[in-house]
Parts: sequence; structure tokens; C-alpha cells
Amino acid sequence: MELITLVIYDISDDDLRLKVAKFLKRMGLNRIQRSAFAGALTRAQRVDVEAGLRRLVHGRNDVNIQIYPLTPASYSQRVMIGVELKYEDEELLV
Amino acid sequence: MELITLVIYDISDDDLRLKVAKFLKRMGLNRIQRSAFAGALTRAQRVDVEAGLRRLVHGRNDVNIQIYPLTPASYSQRVMIGVELKYEDEELLV
Repeated sequence: MELITLVIYDISDDDLRLKVAKFLKRMGLNRIQRSAFAGALTRAQRVDVEAGLRRLVHGRNDVNIQIYPLTPASYSQRVMIGVELKYEDEELLV
Repeated sequence: MELITLVIYDISDDDLRLKVAKFLKRMGLNRIQRSAFAGALTRAQRVDVEAGLRRLVHGRNDVNIQIYPLTPASYSQRVMIGVELKYEDEELLV
């Protein structure tokens, strides 16, 4: 069963943060905030995402990444406040 | 039933971001990242959190906040990569 995988991260190093964002995008996730991605993944894909993130941040002591597998019910009950922000500017810098 | 409420936010204005963080802390949530809080809330408490956040960011067009009610299963299956970061410095600025 596909679950919505939510990835949130706290990475102060600009280069590394961009690498993580590019990686998550390549794995099929969508940016939902500056430091958050989400998307439907199989369990195997989620394991790949986790392994790839571990490789990318290996040895760093200034990084925190959290991965949440959400049921469709959890995801459909999310509440959004404010506006959908755009992040193209950051993408262009990559 | 209490669910774990996860709140993630993208707020560029320093003052407003601090206000939101203080509010979430006051509502009993714990900081899990620079721009993310989580904690067990009843449905009524979650509604209060949502209403309070809407008041705080009313009229702003540069804010995105997302609230996710997580089942205990979702929360227990979360994966953390990296280290637990500390945010006392930001608290002191408040």
C-alpha cells in the first residue's frame, strides 16, 4: 500500500539543503514547504529515500531530518493556513 | 482519542515566527525542529491551536502553516536522521 511520506528537515548548510531538496524531488516527492516534501511512496521507495538521505548527510552533526509515513486519513485531514508559497527562486540557484 | 498533532510552518518574518513558536509551546506542543512542533492533543485542543494560528497570521500573504493529525502508528514509525538539534538560542531572543 502506498502511504504519503512526509519528509521535514532542518539543515543550515545551503549546499547540503539544496542537495537534499533535489534528491527528494528526484525521488518523486513534491515540495510542500521550504524544508518539507511529501508524496505517495511504496514501502520500498520510502526505504530508498531513507537510505539516500542517510548517505547525503553522513557524518554531519548539524542536520535533523524526520520522515513520517502518513495514512491517507491523516493526510486528508491536514489543515493548511496561509498561502501556498512558491520556491522557484531557490530551484534556479541549484 | 488523543492524536499526535504535527505542525510545520514556513514563516520568513522573524517576529511572527517567534510568536508562532511561543504560541505552540504554550499550547503544549514540543519543538522537534526549527520550524516544526509536535505533541499529543485532543481534538478540541487541536481546534484551538488551529484557531490561534489563524489569528496570529491573519492577513499575511507570506506564511504557510500545515497541521497534520497523526495516528500513534504513524508517529511511532517516524524515522529520524542526523542529530537532535537544540534551539535554546532562539528562545532566548524572545
